[in-house]
Amino acid sequence: MKKFHRLFFLLLCATAIANVAFAQQNTSFREGTVISPIIDSLGCAHFTLYAPNAKRVEVFGDWEEGGGYGLMHMESKADGIWTFTTSPLKSEMYMYRFVIDGITVTDPANPFCRRDVGNIFSIFYVNGGYGDLYQVHDVPHGTVETVWYPSAETKSERRLQVYLPPSYQQNGEKRYPVLYLLHGSGGDENAWLDLGQINRIMDNLIAAQKIAEFIVVMPNGTISKPAASGETSENTSFRPLMTHLLPDYKNGRYEQSFPEIVNFVDKRYNTQADKAGRAIAGLSMGGFHTLLIGLNHPQLFDYYGLFSAGLDPNLANSGISAYSDLDFKYDYLKQTGYKLFWMACGTADFLYELNRNFDIELNKRQVQHTYVESTRGHLWINWREYFVEFSQKLFK
Amino acid sequence: MKKFHRLFFLLLCATAIANVAFAQQNTSFREGTVISPIIDSLGCAHFTLYAPNAKRVEVFGDWEEGGGYGLMHMESKADGIWTFTTSPLKSEMYMYRFVIDGITVTDPANPFCRRDVGNIFSIFYVNGGYGDLYQVHDVPHGTVETVWYPSAETKSERRLQVYLPPSYQQNGEKRYPVLYLLHGSGGDENAWLDLGQINRIMDNLIAAQKIAEFIVVMPNGTISKPAASGETSENTSFRPLMTHLLPDYKNGRYEQSFPEIVNFVDKRYNTQADKAGRAIAGLSMGGFHTLLIGLNHPQLFDYYGLFSAGLDPNLANSGISAYSDLDFKYDYLKQTGYKLFWMACGTADFLYELNRNFDIELNKRQVQHTYVESTRGHLWINWREYFVEFSQKLFK
Repeated sequence: MKKFHRLFFLLLCATAIANVAFAQQNTSFREGTVISPIIDSLGCAHFTLYAPNAKRVEVFGDWEEGGGYGLMHMESKADGIWTFTTSPLKSEMYMYRFVIDGITVTDPANPFCRRDVGNIFSIFYVNGGYGDLYQVHDVPHGTVETVWYPSAETKSERRLQVYLPPSYQQNGEKRYPVLYLLHGSGGDENAWLDLGQINRIMDNLIAAQKIAEFIVVMPNGTISKPAASGETSENTSFRPLMTHLLPDYKNGRYEQSFPEIVNFVDKRYNTQADKAGRAIAGLSMGGFHTLLIGLNHPQLFDYYGLFSAGLDPNLANSGISAYSDLDFKYDYLKQTGYKLFWMACGTADFLYELNRNFDIELNKRQVQHTYVESTRGHLWINWREYFVEFSQKLFK
Repeated sequence: MKKFHRLFFLLLCATAIANVAFAQQNTSFREGTVISPIIDSLGCAHFTLYAPNAKRVEVFGDWEEGGGYGLMHMESKADGIWTFTTSPLKSEMYMYRFVIDGITVTDPANPFCRRDVGNIFSIFYVNGGYGDLYQVHDVPHGTVETVWYPSAETKSERRLQVYLPPSYQQNGEKRYPVLYLLHGSGGDENAWLDLGQINRIMDNLIAAQKIAEFIVVMPNGTISKPAASGETSENTSFRPLMTHLLPDYKNGRYEQSFPEIVNFVDKRYNTQADKAGRAIAGLSMGGFHTLLIGLNHPQLFDYYGLFSAGLDPNLANSGISAYSDLDFKYDYLKQTGYKLFWMACGTADFLYELNRNFDIELNKRQVQHTYVESTRGHLWINWREYFVEFSQKLFK
């Protein structure tokens, strides 16, 4: 790899003093000094951190650097600067954090970050492939709406995100198909936007005429919480947790009451309010939800997507009605019919065996489906790419 | 102050190991260990940080602790734990960061943060007053929309945020007044939502029947950028900067072309599309914009709000038409008429003298107005409180 200039380290002490002065008016802002990361033309990410007192600094990222994930040691340079450079990365959106003497933080030089469950990650993009789809381009943009719907099931308002395609406002009479897109355990209604970059993928694939123009509805799938952490009346007193640690996990209420979301959406938006105009997909726990919502309400959807689904074969014996009578429900699904049942999983995913066995089970049950295996594990990198593939098969 | 238990420090090393194992699937999440901050019943914030190798740790916050802002030293305790406790704070939303041996980071134990210009801050609330208005309660919620409008001025789509009150969807025919709410230098169309908590203030004040139901439109006021950093086709290659460092700052184009935003909003939403149904307000640079948009388009608005306005008396001699002919424009404003011209500034604001002089100038010009002085400086704490006061005077 050619040598790369990455030192933008000027007058750091002077800036620190200026920050304190500005601080009094809280208008402190970043103005140069260290720039990190810098992505070079080969797709290598160059990280820089100013940490003169640190004894050990690591980068923790979600790229497959040398065949694995985990901690990569940063090298100590002169003047308190630490650096690390990846090998060339494929085009993607990546997430990372620094671990400074055991304290895990975002990159102080990078203002762009995302929350994933309870942790904040810095992000960067590598251009030239999938990563291009996850960024903003000068194409017509859809609208993103944060709305609350009245839930009879929970007797409360619940929050959901909606993506409306660019032409939606211009075509008062046109009716659009809808994809219901479900998050995983610990996620919420923001996850597919913040981490899945759904509005950008949609804008870009619509502009490229690779997908139909459709609405994407992203509800909250944690039945005991009406909204993302920080967006409920518990505010910051409730901190993000994995969903299986919360009440009412896998009791079937969410799956059985899902039509109330569909009804709300069909009432509020110009939707193609029939089976041919509806798809449902989800990642991990949302893949499990997708399957069970489909098995309990097969009349609603023509398209199913299970991304690294968190399947749970034992639930058939749980006595919970939403999870019971599977033989009957699979037969009913087949009789009702559908156009696509698409599932995907990474070979390094901890749910890989479950998904592989489910492919076999679906074959035994003669449930027509497509099973795709990718590399990698239980990662947003996979879910974004699955979405790109799946979305191109819908409503055609 | 009574002694307070704040140690939730259990098995930190074991959790660190678990995080690395989970990391392989990127499902790492926070599960207990340190909890920070904890707000006690007196309104004292107790901060805790695990940093066994650190030599010096400070908290940097925006509360008026002991009469000033800036860095507060944390105390080193056993087992690598550092702590700091504030004196009782008035009810508010506060922002803070830790400075660990000179490295400024968010609180690693706090998943709730906000970006202000180029920096990420952790946040917390103190209940019992204004702070209650900035949080979510079980009241009807409005809708927040992120939309792009076509700008003839910049020949591009530009991004704006819209708050629609809870009843908006239920009343297809009702026409709502609109407040145009402008951000400051370095801010963007997200600022009044993320830092101003506008959708929550609106939900709560509407539920309390303290304000009229109106729409809030939050455009981007940096004419050289169509959207917030990270939301333009420059994506992460453009990092947030103060607006005065960017091209086309104070050239009058934004102020003169503002009617294109009003026309877009009146076309798209059920608005009360007349002067009595429009207000405009802004903070800092947005207060300057408010004044100049009003002076150039007085037929549009009946209500003006200048919050810690970044006034610039020298621009009258700039030769730029939007900023010239002020005698004529003030007379025209008075002839056209308006219902409210409200301005506020903190006595510790670096723009205090400018605003005080402007109050005197308005008196000389016999421009009817209300001038309010608060304590504190150039802070979101002031702007949120100004909004709460100003919003109750609109459309009544």
